[in-house]
Amino acid sequence: MTRILVVNSNTTESVTARIATAARAVAPPGVVIDCVSAPFGLPLIVTRADWLVAGPATLAALATRRGGYDAAVIACFGDPGLDAAKELLDVPVLGISEAAFHAACMLGRRFAVVSFTAALRPMFEECLDHHGLRSRCCGFRMGPAFSGDPGTVAEDRRALLIGLCREAVEQDGAEVLILAGGPLAGMAPLLQPHVAVPLVDGTQAAVRLAVALAGLAPLDQRRRARPLTGYAPEVTRLYGG
Amino acid sequence: MTRILVVNSNTTESVTARIATAARAVAPPGVVIDCVSAPFGLPLIVTRADWLVAGPATLAALATRRGGYDAAVIACFGDPGLDAAKELLDVPVLGISEAAFHAACMLGRRFAVVSFTAALRPMFEECLDHHGLRSRCCGFRMGPAFSGDPGTVAEDRRALLIGLCREAVEQDGAEVLILAGGPLAGMAPLLQPHVAVPLVDGTQAAVRLAVALAGLAPLDQRRRARPLTGYAPEVTRLYGG
Amino acid sequence: MTRILVVNSNTTESVTARIATAARAVAPPGVVIDCVSAPFGLPLIVTRADWLVAGPATLAALATRRGGYDAAVIACFGDPGLDAAKELLDVPVLGISEAAFHAACMLGRRFAVVSFTAALRPMFEECLDHHGLRSRCCGFRMGPAFSGDPGTVAEDRRALLIGLCREAVEQDGAEVLILAGGPLAGMAPLLQPHVAVPLVDGTQAAVRLAVALAGLAPLDQRRRARPLTGYAPEVTRLYGG
Amino acid sequence: MTRILVVNSNTTESVTARIATAARAVAPPGVVIDCVSAPFGLPLIVTRADWLVAGPATLAALATRRGGYDAAVIACFGDPGLDAAKELLDVPVLGISEAAFHAACMLGRRFAVVSFTAALRPMFEECLDHHGLRSRCCGFRMGPAFSGDPGTVAEDRRALLIGLCREAVEQDGAEVLILAGGPLAGMAPLLQPHVAVPLVDGTQAAVRLAVALAGLAPLDQRRRARPLTGYAPEVTRLYGG
Amino acid sequence: MTRILVVNSNTTESVTARIATAARAVAPPGVVIDCVSAPFGLPLIVTRADWLVAGPATLAALATRRGGYDAAVIACFGDPGLDAAKELLDVPVLGISEAAFHAACMLGRRFAVVSFTAALRPMFEECLDHHGLRSRCCGFRMGPAFSGDPGTVAEDRRALLIGLCREAVEQDGAEVLILAGGPLAGMAPLLQPHVAVPLVDGTQAAVRLAVALAGLAPLDQRRRARPLTGYAPEVTRLYGG
Amino acid sequence: MTRILVVNSNTTESVTARIATAARAVAPPGVVIDCVSAPFGLPLIVTRADWLVAGPATLAALATRRGGYDAAVIACFGDPGLDAAKELLDVPVLGISEAAFHAACMLGRRFAVVSFTAALRPMFEECLDHHGLRSRCCGFRMGPAFSGDPGTVAEDRRALLIGLCREAVEQDGAEVLILAGGPLAGMAPLLQPHVAVPLVDGTQAAVRLAVALAGLAPLDQRRRARPLTGYAPEVTRLYGG
Repeated sequence: MTRILVVNSNTTESVTARIATAARAVAPPGVVIDCVSAPFGLPLIVTRADWLVAGPATLAALATRRGGYDAAVIACFGDPGLDAAKELLDVPVLGISEAAFHAACMLGRRFAVVSFTAALRPMFEECLDHHGLRSRCCGFRMGPAFSGDPGTVAEDRRALLIGLCREAVEQDGAEVLILAGGPLAGMAPLLQPHVAVPLVDGTQAAVRLAVALAGLAPLDQRRRARPLTGYAPEVTRLYGG
Repeated sequence: MTRILVVNSNTTESVTARIATAARAVAPPGVVIDCVSAPFGLPLIVTRADWLVAGPATLAALATRRGGYDAAVIACFGDPGLDAAKELLDVPVLGISEAAFHAACMLGRRFAVVSFTAALRPMFEECLDHHGLRSRCCGFRMGPAFSGDPGTVAEDRRALLIGLCREAVEQDGAEVLILAGGPLAGMAPLLQPHVAVPLVDGTQAAVRLAVALAGLAPLDQRRRARPLTGYAPEVTRLYGG
Repeated sequence: MTRILVVNSNTTESVTARIATAARAVAPPGVVIDCVSAPFGLPLIVTRADWLVAGPATLAALATRRGGYDAAVIACFGDPGLDAAKELLDVPVLGISEAAFHAACMLGRRFAVVSFTAALRPMFEECLDHHGLRSRCCGFRMGPAFSGDPGTVAEDRRALLIGLCREAVEQDGAEVLILAGGPLAGMAPLLQPHVAVPLVDGTQAAVRLAVALAGLAPLDQRRRARPLTGYAPEVTRLYGG
Repeated sequence: MTRILVVNSNTTESVTARIATAARAVAPPGVVIDCVSAPFGLPLIVTRADWLVAGPATLAALATRRGGYDAAVIACFGDPGLDAAKELLDVPVLGISEAAFHAACMLGRRFAVVSFTAALRPMFEECLDHHGLRSRCCGFRMGPAFSGDPGTVAEDRRALLIGLCREAVEQDGAEVLILAGGPLAGMAPLLQPHVAVPLVDGTQAAVRLAVALAGLAPLDQRRRARPLTGYAPEVTRLYGG
Repeated sequence: MTRILVVNSNTTESVTARIATAARAVAPPGVVIDCVSAPFGLPLIVTRADWLVAGPATLAALATRRGGYDAAVIACFGDPGLDAAKELLDVPVLGISEAAFHAACMLGRRFAVVSFTAALRPMFEECLDHHGLRSRCCGFRMGPAFSGDPGTVAEDRRALLIGLCREAVEQDGAEVLILAGGPLAGMAPLLQPHVAVPLVDGTQAAVRLAVALAGLAPLDQRRRARPLTGYAPEVTRLYGG
Repeated sequence: MTRILVVNSNTTESVTARIATAARAVAPPGVVIDCVSAPFGLPLIVTRADWLVAGPATLAALATRRGGYDAAVIACFGDPGLDAAKELLDVPVLGISEAAFHAACMLGRRFAVVSFTAALRPMFEECLDHHGLRSRCCGFRMGPAFSGDPGTVAEDRRALLIGLCREAVEQDGAEVLILAGGPLAGMAPLLQPHVAVPLVDGTQAAVRLAVALAGLAPLDQRRRARPLTGYAPEVTRLYGG
């Protein structure tokens, strides 16, 4: 049995539930998905400062359940805490931005990022740069500023999203599309019938890839006992060797 | 049941057998590996011209068994025919260079490429550029020119390889190592005990990732019936829609 | 006397005739142009799979006339078979995309690519990346999707093309323009009077540069006799040393 | 009067004292330097995980003294918490890696990074990439692995450092040198007489540039009241608007 | 007392006066600004040829006052003569494009360039490439072609400029804006109240940074006596050692 | 008859004579080579400041003979005045660095730069960046610092150069070599018998390409009458329209 821990880096339980549903939908037989919220932090992750403070919260969630999973997924676009988690944990840890980019690259040569609002573009550009994959992205197609209810935006902007997907294919030459932004989690199957190229959902891509990499664990050479102060015991213990 | 077709792009059966062994070693329960040689072409793939002529041979192998697998792997560094296969086939197709790069990226931020001979460096550099991942590679550590028996080089240069792996970790800051070159297929488990960071085997990475992506098939919008001449019927049929 | 072989990588004789006319228009005195079609393959080259299968066909055309020319041109945007031809032939071989890019770079610092349809953009972007010249391209100006007769598109979209050329100069700061796409071969002289910067025709640039480089032949150190199977004798003989 | 807050991102008071000395040495008349340690975290910052956990500690130090300074410096190579601080604070905040890179760029076109141990190279490469300045760095010249006393390494490896500086100038064509690594803070004046090009000290460059930018404050448009939990009150208040 | 020489690379005295006003507005107490025009050359610098011929004129202005300033600013977008001045002078010399880019980078991660006319875009793109900072620029927002009076364009296009600034923030995610083009010198304070992110004025940024770097002089290792002919004595003397 | 003007950007007549010999050796029948020295400036061009002051001198040489040639070559590595000349002249103008890079790219995918002294590396790196071709260069192989007689260095370091060429081929995978530095002009034929890949001589490459591009003249839209002062009448007249 393979166990995958999925951490929602924010503290909103309804989002965690939605992520869990999306994650479980692609879990192969014999794979168990455990999905948890960040134990502290913010209800929504938007800015670079948010990523920073969500990082230790994500580490805390990973640390608490240490030993109880074979691979982990950080289910928050922007991948807070990802680099630290890769260093401190002894199993593979994937971010959903990271996983979406790599899965898209393997499914086609040119991918576009589609979302309901342009406000997400800077975060995705920085994330692409961080992972070194900017050159594989052939375009961004995003809707106008949004101030409505994230819980219903996927439905409210459904026609817009289908239009954006088609523009990405026809005008940018996209061969794969990444559906970006937390509120669109789980939308891919609903939009796919209207779009001619594969739609990648970050959470589901991350679960698939985490299952694939389980067992290829980073070794422990970089961890050494160090006296961390000011954090909860489970995080401090990550530094305990 | 998930079926993975692994194509050795050259015509040497002993290499195909070795690839099959490596591939099957990582196949999860319920996954069947079928491994075949290119039906024509060259016994060894070295130059850019070799990649070109190995491309249609690889396509022919993929075309012949069309419908009989859920994802495919092109098991030849340099990934001959990969872009064409992604366009023409209706299941995910991965190359072993491509898979090694993406797996390494997900296991750590800095990977190095280690091989027994520097003659492979240009091919890997071009391959990294083609996949847009040059910036993730922190170094090449490769042995001197080699003119011996590829069948025994892994054993003959075992101490050299361990030394190169250690240099990559200590001097280049590598956090993951790709063991490169056909003759090193299957060597990772033997070298791993001597190296502090994960060793990635291209064939095994590709099988893992092909299993992960099976079902996320590229759609058929790009294929259209076209009168191809001069190739075997199975390749021509790929152009038949 | 300098002899230049121009290979049309597709099998359409009317296109070959048109290429020959454009090529001969710029041949200096004492230069003879021989223009041939691919002996097999596809009537039109559009996708990455097309480039792959057109590669061996282009090699076959080059191999058949081996010894009868001082330099060669692959007259198909996307340059199918180019890298292999550079390795296997003992005279300079240029592709028309390659030649257009280099000629444009030498005529000005910023070039734009102008064409009748945006469908060509991905191919040109990949080609620019392959030649390492993406940073010299300051923009793409291309018309909408096209499903009419390629034989008359140059005339049908003449006003559109002039408008696109002007936008490239005024809005992108282009100092040179590449007129892109097979159906526009030979259009440059007709459009030039309406455009303030030089228009580069790929075939004609390639002929000029092939004449210039004739005699600077790649040496033979990379060719070695190897048992290629599954290809026509003339291609196999390229592997014969 | 201009007040500059310098935060040592680790918890080691002796390092803070050393930083304060270096910082005050370049403060112009009328500029007051206040230098503090991180209130919690780690005694030494080495890995990516360290940067992450040092980030909120650095924010806490900045938040506690909010309103009491006109610009701030994060005095830790790797710049922990820098992006978040730029968003959350209403005065300019500079990191010492960032400042060293920008100062070096303005003093010459090619800078090299010199340090006593190669272990710092990955961190500097990532930092250069993050700031987009990798292309301005013409080389790294660093000593072998080091396991001695950081407090005396500057003295112990003095001859080595002078040799590395000279190699950077003569072999890499460096026109400016960045002296990298916490234990080398304050060494620049001692080494400068032996080196023909300017030596940049990160802390001192940051103080100079912070004074220059004081008053060009980022505006407050990105901060909005948000319910952060799990952090100390002063950090939480940064999210209070 | 710190003395800063500001050189207007063109010969138009009214522009020099305007630059002087902007420069003096940000000079700290104890800093004296001397502002001069190029002694020969062109009344306006627009093309690459203009930059070239303005280079020796700028050098002449710098050479004439040699010894009389602690740092210098070349107050012309495009930075004519900058690299030569950095080599030949024994004090720091900054260009206003260079200074604007570096200041913007330190104030935020994403900057946009805003100007009254798109004709300036190629120059800024080349300048960004020369300084290696293209990746930090998230967009250009520029008005249409302009053929009116440069002396009043800042006023005439004020509403346009405010609109462009807002688009850069809202659509490109800019966190800092560079107000580009000579005729906009001094406009930043007038536009700032209407824009939510910091506006950077090149001349003022350069003065601030020149004051900061004064004293970090490039050393003299690169200058050697050489027999320059055809230039005015003060330039020739720069080559005199 | 095609006339090519070759300008040596320095004032040393013996170098001009040597350039003329190399240039004439590759001129096709019907092509006349005129070779002149810069009318003023420096006897040797080494630094960025040298490039700047050599620029107007090169323009003066080009301007004096205006109307008397069909294409021009700037025969000085570093290409002083090249961008300005491309704007101001109504015929194609090529630099020898530029020409060497483009010719090398068309003869193979990977070129290395070989020279007798490492002191030339920064200039070549900057030149490669300026032309956007850094990614095509697979290595630099250069001798140690040199303070002997440039007139005999080619002979004195002949064995060294052959060794460097071989290292570039065997260790860097170079498929073409650029022989760099003025003192090596004309050496290519002497070294070629000892090297397995083509050697490119900058002057000869530039003459070949200038002949090829003659007639593809940049149009005159960018030149406009402007009141240039401080330069010789022939340069001033370039600004006269």
